[in-house]
Amino acid sequence: MGRAIKIFAPATVANIGPGFDVLGLALQNIGDEIEMQLNSEGGIKITMIGSEDLPTDPTKNVAGVALQAMLDQLGSTQGFEMTISKNVLPGSGLGSSASSSAGAVFAANELLNRPYTKTELIQFAMAGEASIAGKPHADNVAPSLLGGVTLVRSYTPLDVVNIGYPNDLFITVVHPQIEVKTADSKKILRKEIPLELAVAQWGNVAGLVSGFASSDFELIGRSLQDLIVEPIRSMLIPGFHELKASAIKNGALGCSISGSGPSVFALSNSLEIAQQIGEGFKTVFNRLEIDNHIHISKVNIEGAVIVK
Amino acid sequence: MGRAIKIFAPATVANIGPGFDVLGLALQNIGDEIEMQLNSEGGIKITMIGSEDLPTDPTKNVAGVALQAMLDQLGSTQGFEMTISKNVLPGSGLGSSASSSAGAVFAANELLNRPYTKTELIQFAMAGEASIAGKPHADNVAPSLLGGVTLVRSYTPLDVVNIGYPNDLFITVVHPQIEVKTADSKKILRKEIPLELAVAQWGNVAGLVSGFASSDFELIGRSLQDLIVEPIRSMLIPGFHELKASAIKNGALGCSISGSGPSVFALSNSLEIAQQIGEGFKTVFNRLEIDNHIHISKVNIEGAVIVK
Repeated sequence: MGRAIKIFAPATVANIGPGFDVLGLALQNIGDEIEMQLNSEGGIKITMIGSEDLPTDPTKNVAGVALQAMLDQLGSTQGFEMTISKNVLPGSGLGSSASSSAGAVFAANELLNRPYTKTELIQFAMAGEASIAGKPHADNVAPSLLGGVTLVRSYTPLDVVNIGYPNDLFITVVHPQIEVKTADSKKILRKEIPLELAVAQWGNVAGLVSGFASSDFELIGRSLQDLIVEPIRSMLIPGFHELKASAIKNGALGCSISGSGPSVFALSNSLEIAQQIGEGFKTVFNRLEIDNHIHISKVNIEGAVIVK
Repeated sequence: MGRAIKIFAPATVANIGPGFDVLGLALQNIGDEIEMQLNSEGGIKITMIGSEDLPTDPTKNVAGVALQAMLDQLGSTQGFEMTISKNVLPGSGLGSSASSSAGAVFAANELLNRPYTKTELIQFAMAGEASIAGKPHADNVAPSLLGGVTLVRSYTPLDVVNIGYPNDLFITVVHPQIEVKTADSKKILRKEIPLELAVAQWGNVAGLVSGFASSDFELIGRSLQDLIVEPIRSMLIPGFHELKASAIKNGALGCSISGSGPSVFALSNSLEIAQQIGEGFKTVFNRLEIDNHIHISKVNIEGAVIVK
């Protein structure tokens, strides 16, 4: 048995309102823990804790696929064993699979003495994502690896950058215990959109990025609008409009769907407001008799980290 | 005769690559000068210098329409006389009509002891723009009034903000002496666009705004791409691809169409490079035997100003 490592790869909120498929942020204190060690017999062995439905076959588990993509690139036949402890269920809209993909390549990269930078690891974690979503995606793996708020400016070539945001930005997330599969929620989107709507959307993207960069909370609030995807995907989330109204009433800057849902997030500029928003979210889902978890945090600036 | 004033309202570069219909910046040392005075007989009288083809009938001249919109809102029957000296021809893509619209309301507002803020004047200047473009537009009048780099985040409600940009940003503009009417260049655009292309565009908008805010010139360069409008409008500009190739070769961060063209602009981070780009532009158009003017400046931080 080789050296062992334990890492944490955070859950993430992709899209952040208008930034469909390009923006994402990392959360604190929620995500996957992965214990990994080298294995002299070769091959990848996966044990799952907390989500026993997920495959442990490394060719079917996103973490295995991501790690294999990295080993293929390295031309390595090194074996690995990993135990993935999940505290975010798949189909949450919080980048659960991305945390596993990102965490696996981050851990292996550490065990192999960092042949790659974190940014270079994104491409391998994307291979994990592609194995379940059909298309390589970086809007969750990028923030899970890098931390902060990330922009996937382009896929060909892959261009991911961290963008500025206010230190006192709080995120309230509610995760209703119902599942929406990303693949399903992609299918219902229109393939063509009116130019006028696209212009309004990139006006909001520009406002959000500028508001983040200049700590202009009012501009962030006005810009946190998704005119294209939210109107469609919100139909799959029971109580969405009440959640949003409740968040705004409680002082949120804005509120939208986390990733492809069903989790919903709101941004605010104080812990107190973030907590009030959480209470409001809980009230709405409790009335609908839908089990739900509330998570409140600031932006995670570190991304994937070694725990021990 | 009442008090007289002379103002300058700068020419502008709208869109700035990916920010179609939302972003714009003001240029230094190029634009309209307007001399205005109160007139006790009522009515609006306009004299044009430098562009004798433009109408002087105040109901047909953008400056007259804009000023009348402001007077209507004020419930005023005050008369005005103005002389508009144009050094940018209409149909240039440098916001020629916007400079007149913005300048007229700015001057009148000063003569009336500032009933409105500059931001409030945008709506009136837009009325001038609407009288020739058919649809109210703010992406030229906003920077001409406010200066700097502006974002028109939304039209309903109107939400215009200044966004951050690097101090050492240079703009090289070439204005070929051929005319493209904004109305024509709008007509050739598609009304529906693929979602995938829209996503790529707002990735670039986010990158440009973030690059501007953080003075990340490389990111500005990578993001200065318009995948939607430029491929279509560039067909109306002779030599466009050579101009762009020449600008990049000369060290430009990026190069695209100014407004609806035919002027073409490039961004750079030094005066020397900006001048080299200008030489390159000149060479391309001279070879095509198209008369052209080069203009080099930094971003104009003041917008419309009183000259005396």
